Amino acid sequence: MYKIDLNSDLAESFGNYKLGMDDEVIPLITSANVACGFHASDPVVMDGAVKIAKASGTEVGAHPGYPDLMGFGRRNMVISAKEAYTYTLYQLGALDAFLRANGCRMQHVKPHGAMYNMAAKDYKLASAICEAIRDFDPKLIVLALFGGQLEKASRDLGLRTASEFFADRAYNTDGTLVSRTIPGSMITDEEEAIERSIRMVMEHKVKTIEGTDITVDCNSICVHGDNAKALAFVEKIRSAMTAAGILLCPLKDIV
Amino acid sequence: MYKIDLNSDLAESFGNYKLGMDDEVIPLITSANVACGFHASDPVVMDGAVKIAKASGTEVGAHPGYPDLMGFGRRNMVISAKEAYTYTLYQLGALDAFLRANGCRMQHVKPHGAMYNMAAKDYKLASAICEAIRDFDPKLIVLALFGGQLEKASRDLGLRTASEFFADRAYNTDGTLVSRTIPGSMITDEEEAIERSIRMVMEHKVKTIEGTDITVDCNSICVHGDNAKALAFVEKIRSAMTAAGILLCPLKDIV
Amino acid sequence: MYKIDLNSDLAESFGNYKLGMDDEVIPLITSANVACGFHASDPVVMDGAVKIAKASGTEVGAHPGYPDLMGFGRRNMVISAKEAYTYTLYQLGALDAFLRANGCRMQHVKPHGAMYNMAAKDYKLASAICEAIRDFDPKLIVLALFGGQLEKASRDLGLRTASEFFADRAYNTDGTLVSRTIPGSMITDEEEAIERSIRMVMEHKVKTIEGTDITVDCNSICVHGDNAKALAFVEKIRSAMTAAGILLCPLKDIV
Amino acid sequence: MYKIDLNSDLAESFGNYKLGMDDEVIPLITSANVACGFHASDPVVMDGAVKIAKASGTEVGAHPGYPDLMGFGRRNMVISAKEAYTYTLYQLGALDAFLRANGCRMQHVKPHGAMYNMAAKDYKLASAICEAIRDFDPKLIVLALFGGQLEKASRDLGLRTASEFFADRAYNTDGTLVSRTIPGSMITDEEEAIERSIRMVMEHKVKTIEGTDITVDCNSICVHGDNAKALAFVEKIRSAMTAAGILLCPLKDIV
Repeated sequence: MYKIDLNSDLAESFGNYKLGMDDEVIPLITSANVACGFHASDPVVMDGAVKIAKASGTEVGAHPGYPDLMGFGRRNMVISAKEAYTYTLYQLGALDAFLRANGCRMQHVKPHGAMYNMAAKDYKLASAICEAIRDFDPKLIVLALFGGQLEKASRDLGLRTASEFFADRAYNTDGTLVSRTIPGSMITDEEEAIERSIRMVMEHKVKTIEGTDITVDCNSICVHGDNAKALAFVEKIRSAMTAAGILLCPLKDIV
Repeated sequence: MYKIDLNSDLAESFGNYKLGMDDEVIPLITSANVACGFHASDPVVMDGAVKIAKASGTEVGAHPGYPDLMGFGRRNMVISAKEAYTYTLYQLGALDAFLRANGCRMQHVKPHGAMYNMAAKDYKLASAICEAIRDFDPKLIVLALFGGQLEKASRDLGLRTASEFFADRAYNTDGTLVSRTIPGSMITDEEEAIERSIRMVMEHKVKTIEGTDITVDCNSICVHGDNAKALAFVEKIRSAMTAAGILLCPLKDIV
Repeated sequence: MYKIDLNSDLAESFGNYKLGMDDEVIPLITSANVACGFHASDPVVMDGAVKIAKASGTEVGAHPGYPDLMGFGRRNMVISAKEAYTYTLYQLGALDAFLRANGCRMQHVKPHGAMYNMAAKDYKLASAICEAIRDFDPKLIVLALFGGQLEKASRDLGLRTASEFFADRAYNTDGTLVSRTIPGSMITDEEEAIERSIRMVMEHKVKTIEGTDITVDCNSICVHGDNAKALAFVEKIRSAMTAAGILLCPLKDIV
Repeated sequence: MYKIDLNSDLAESFGNYKLGMDDEVIPLITSANVACGFHASDPVVMDGAVKIAKASGTEVGAHPGYPDLMGFGRRNMVISAKEAYTYTLYQLGALDAFLRANGCRMQHVKPHGAMYNMAAKDYKLASAICEAIRDFDPKLIVLALFGGQLEKASRDLGLRTASEFFADRAYNTDGTLVSRTIPGSMITDEEEAIERSIRMVMEHKVKTIEGTDITVDCNSICVHGDNAKALAFVEKIRSAMTAAGILLCPLKDIV
């Protein structure tokens, strides 16, 4: 049977600052990436997100990022392998405390923002992150960009590894994402985004920006919960997947 | 047999800032209170302290504090019970990641600075902290000020509870510490401090500033590792305790 | 002629976090309190707010707060007089850089949140804040709670001093605000809030929660710009003031 | 007459963390680079450093850095031109408040750490920093790496520009510093470092690592004040310069 996970970045509020619609989006997805306090989130927010996930049966993963709250973890920073290792461990542990207190288990880890992007290109950084994950809990699933260095480092360490499809992004023939600065990089038509996702799940194929088909075999689709339109899209892609006979289930039931 | 634990606040360096002599003091004590990144410490420092503790067989506890790096967690802050609960959980989890990665277990929790002092007087705050400890791991030992509200809250929740003796501080007849603003509040004579500690261990008695004896039954003595003089005192109190037939051992072997 | 200032707390966004409707509310008020990066705001946000204020001819003041981004500066913190003095200076200078770069001048200073509330009750804290203001620019206006210690400290130092009326809060007979925990503390009826404001401006009187009249002589009314309802209220109170023959003008034209 | 400035990075303590020997080094130098709270320092520390500088007649400059306290501003971060512009303005203003309160004037600006290094290579970043300096005070002196993009951007904007010589670093034939990873990159012999400095001042020449002479015409020599050895070197280079007939004076008397 065809299976796919829907993941979303959550628990990104901070103190008095509210960001995202955690209450609404968590029940619609199968894997929640919970920010851990470095680039976003705080202890009260993390506890709240874990409780919502528990109530709706959604699996929880850690979403560690760079220590750059002002830049929301989206700015490239050059950190050492030791820093990457310990920053990841710290954030995994912090989230795990809330899971433990709420009687849940951590399912996966997906680095955030610039850490995610840099780890996709930098094997040394990716390895440091994966070593932290392994040393914390070798049964955790690493959720990575398809075809990137983080996916490779994770497999090299023997970790359970999942990769992520971007429904709203165009792909190059080499499997990388088309840069946002290039026209046509974003798939703005929702129907097209959904069709591409379904084809990726069922045929492991996606048409590139050059018009050729390439093989893309991902286990999860990244969706957003920032606003009403994003939520409506999650509902739509859920319905379309189900109608196509695809089972929506968390990563742990796929990889 | 008489037993006593020696605890010290450690892992208080941050980034480029070095504070304390972790390498030297950790092997001399039996329980290390490791700062968790809110009032001091960072992931690299925490990992380092855990590795030193493991190498010297010293037990490790969490030393959570207020989110006030600029004030080193020493300034009173009014936080809600929910904030106290989640801030404690977050910090316990963060430290636990390093213990787990290094194959160790957390022994105890001792709040830091203003959080310690406020929890000693505020039962509601103390309870929130203790609930976080219980929800994280009900086998953890709470290390609290003798006779304070944190000790009471911990016992009320059925947690393993230890109390702390201050060798260099004068006591009031009600068992509280004499305020530092009052002459005679500090025991500056090292020999006297050591004699008071030994008497407390063997007779559970301490002479107050008013000159009467009161019962003080603590399980741990707080020592410092900031400078060479402090280290020399730790060596001295260790020798004196041993010579008096008192066994130096971690909290878990006492309470 | 009757005059009143309308002030509002602004520039409270931070990084990726948007808070408040600066674009909309700044043109409607006469004095903007700009957060300075300790409890809220960042350099990009501050520069933006100053540019909006300049474009709409709104006067700008500093809104310094405690170094507690996670608590939005709303949690009581015990800081020393020296810390209060230097934290205030730092924040005034930071904001002044954006004013200078944009060819504007700072009009006033209003402490934020817990710093405002604590300074209203603590003369020593209030004095430290006012000394920083004086040492930075003795022509600045201090905007304080009516009848509080900050107002007193400001006058004692010979600074230009303005006080603030809360249209939506009930007053006690001694001129203090009725605690929010007491029924009737909030004036929820907008018409009543506006009538009370007009009466305060024209007669310097306000009816207390006990039903008696007291003298309240304030120079500014605090309004909010967080949401559409708040903005509509600002428009309403502006129209009502104007219709009553009251001139809306910045603090510098009043005190 | 031959003239040279001695500059040093100062006010790098933070809260409870003490770094550097400000009291001792400030009277020995002619220009103090004061950290502004992003990568190091806090308001209490900044006020203290300004007071020491005032007492010893040492000129003060701003030492703005990246918002990375944990990395001490030494880690490369990719920030936008707008962020670089506003972060610089913010920090200049913050320091200026302490200068103003103490009756002093800011002399210069030298970016710190990774911001300094990146600005030496990235003209766009360098320009953003220089625009902030110009918009804050067009009479400020920019202290930059000799031959780098920051020096160029500063001159292009018509700002007073000074460049810095590293007495303890080897130079490449193109005028850049030899990477620390290459053997011979550090001049460890103090006498040699001093001779090179004197020759640079009097002949504008320095022998490169390849053995050829190049022209290096700098206005300031960077010295350190972290420890007793560094302080002794400052005393030594002062004496040697004076003996060679070179006047030690602040940047404002040179450029």
